[in-house]
Amino acid sequence: MTTSPLRFAPSQLEHPIVGAPLAGGPSKVALAAAVSGAGGLGFLAAGYRASEDVRAQITELRAATDRPFGVSLFVPTASTARPGEVRRYVESLRGEAHRYGVEPGPPRHDDDGWEAKLDVVTAEQVPVVSFTFGCPADDVVERLHAAGCAVWVTVTTPAEAVEAHQAAVDALVVQGVEAGGHRGSFDLEAPGEIGLLALLQLVAAASDLPLVATGGLMTGRGIAAVLAAGAAAAQIGTALMLTPEAGTSAPHRTALRTGGSTALTRAFSGRAARGLVNRFLRRYSAQAPAAYPELHHVTAPIRAAARERGDVEALNLWAGQAHPLTQERPAAELVRELADEARAALKAVHAASPATADNQHAT
Amino acid sequence: MTTSPLRFAPSQLEHPIVGAPLAGGPSKVALAAAVSGAGGLGFLAAGYRASEDVRAQITELRAATDRPFGVSLFVPTASTARPGEVRRYVESLRGEAHRYGVEPGPPRHDDDGWEAKLDVVTAEQVPVVSFTFGCPADDVVERLHAAGCAVWVTVTTPAEAVEAHQAAVDALVVQGVEAGGHRGSFDLEAPGEIGLLALLQLVAAASDLPLVATGGLMTGRGIAAVLAAGAAAAQIGTALMLTPEAGTSAPHRTALRTGGSTALTRAFSGRAARGLVNRFLRRYSAQAPAAYPELHHVTAPIRAAARERGDVEALNLWAGQAHPLTQERPAAELVRELADEARAALKAVHAASPATADNQHAT
Repeated sequence: MTTSPLRFAPSQLEHPIVGAPLAGGPSKVALAAAVSGAGGLGFLAAGYRASEDVRAQITELRAATDRPFGVSLFVPTASTARPGEVRRYVESLRGEAHRYGVEPGPPRHDDDGWEAKLDVVTAEQVPVVSFTFGCPADDVVERLHAAGCAVWVTVTTPAEAVEAHQAAVDALVVQGVEAGGHRGSFDLEAPGEIGLLALLQLVAAASDLPLVATGGLMTGRGIAAVLAAGAAAAQIGTALMLTPEAGTSAPHRTALRTGGSTALTRAFSGRAARGLVNRFLRRYSAQAPAAYPELHHVTAPIRAAARERGDVEALNLWAGQAHPLTQERPAAELVRELADEARAALKAVHAASPATADNQHAT
Repeated sequence: MTTSPLRFAPSQLEHPIVGAPLAGGPSKVALAAAVSGAGGLGFLAAGYRASEDVRAQITELRAATDRPFGVSLFVPTASTARPGEVRRYVESLRGEAHRYGVEPGPPRHDDDGWEAKLDVVTAEQVPVVSFTFGCPADDVVERLHAAGCAVWVTVTTPAEAVEAHQAAVDALVVQGVEAGGHRGSFDLEAPGEIGLLALLQLVAAASDLPLVATGGLMTGRGIAAVLAAGAAAAQIGTALMLTPEAGTSAPHRTALRTGGSTALTRAFSGRAARGLVNRFLRRYSAQAPAAYPELHHVTAPIRAAARERGDVEALNLWAGQAHPLTQERPAAELVRELADEARAALKAVHAASPATADNQHAT
């Protein structure tokens, strides 16, 4: 199954469940430790963190569990920002910022400390390094492989899957449009918007790499479904956000408990992401240009101030489409129960007619 | 499983596959006969047809197969058209119409012959009557039940599922955002846009009715996935459009073979529907108001002229998100093979570790 016996493959998991990297707060060491400790694959999210923080988190996680884990990195992309559009967006936010007693942040482009973080995950020989927002170059993949790291790349279209396959990565994280948070699309101006089950079928036809399915997976039956579709594992994100181990902020927890619909928006970061609809999302989505991470930095002071005040209306409330099914319970318990439910669902559907009424025809 | 032993339930199917009603041409009697004859559930699409045509099709289908089948009806909705918006849209299309040597059609509101078609399906005691664009009133459901018809309602949100459940229908057709053609949403101004797998989990939590999953299902594995998610059957639409039995027009077949991306648009009918992106969709989607079936009638002459000329650029090219996997083969063969592949996928995933490595914990 795996291309090298030395690198970690999803088929080695006790439970076919990956805890999604949730950058910006929720992915705490305790959450990754709980998921890995329960027999899933816990993830640290290196995005937005200093490389030394990432190293410290890896050390802390290794002290908490001897099981495999992953670290996710943002692939840097060339700036797509048109200065005039960004300037207009910043101006449109000035009243909003003043309402929270802050100024919009600088529309800065950066690479999220790419080289330094690559150095950390390589030096630390992290079992799984996953990427989003693009496919790492061949030499990066080779360097990670030389360090024994398995390389996973997030894809949102069949074309991205083919590109990642050709880069000799070890697995594809297939992200359906249902997913909360940022689209992992390589082209931030044209993000993939394909439903998970359609995308799994399309990607499976284009690549024989192990697939990790993600987007709206909240129940054992949902996990059973992606396994039946051919995925090696299911990656859950929103499902973990109300666990006590997650670093989800208090207003974000409140919003997840309250519910509501979700939408894709560039309003918070300049890159399409799915969140619960609130005032900021409604008001600024139409005018927000594709400019990441420029707008992430622009809105940061507003988001921080709103979070501080417990105000859910000017905060990015990332959530997947099935968020009403989020459970408030310890992460390890959740992982084990979802795995048990998935197994039970597969057993039941295999045993049930009409799926097996005609078993003599099955191969 | 079924609420009445007298009414047809999806669990009675030899193969858990429903041939989606494809109004506007593709759903020919031969297609429904092939799907039902192969052990699936074939459908006739009453939408846009005269009631006497529908009656004749039912008679013809019954002569071709003695297996159960379904007929789908459009639930009439109050007009949401704002006359000024519709007038501006008609004006914007005038050049387009002249290009094809026609005039835009009249922006007429109608109920698609609702009462007459209800009379036909009731008198004919059609085994399954499915509805889209809304939930029939209680007295309609009662009348159909009295005639022995099972009532299925298409839903695109958990709230619609609850409404249909309360109307005492027999099954829910759960339509994911991946689906080709019209969204079945009750509110045409705010169509549900939830991915199939997320929606199946949400609806299963809200209703214990049998679920028929639809949207982007093209492969045995895709079908296995929705069965594992708890659906009683999978409804395939785009998957049937290149079968010889389908009445898919020549330019529509050409477009499906050529490929490309899909998008949701109101440009052709005034109601959100998913089709392959072509010139008409690109040019008119942004300005098309929610006005169904007014815009359906407005664009009809243009679409007919384009179809006649074999021009794919001004035609509604309905297609689901997984359309590149459409196969050109006889419908009966396709249904049997998809069912076999689904069974094989469920068997394989049930047998495989890690899904069953820990079977002693499974319930």
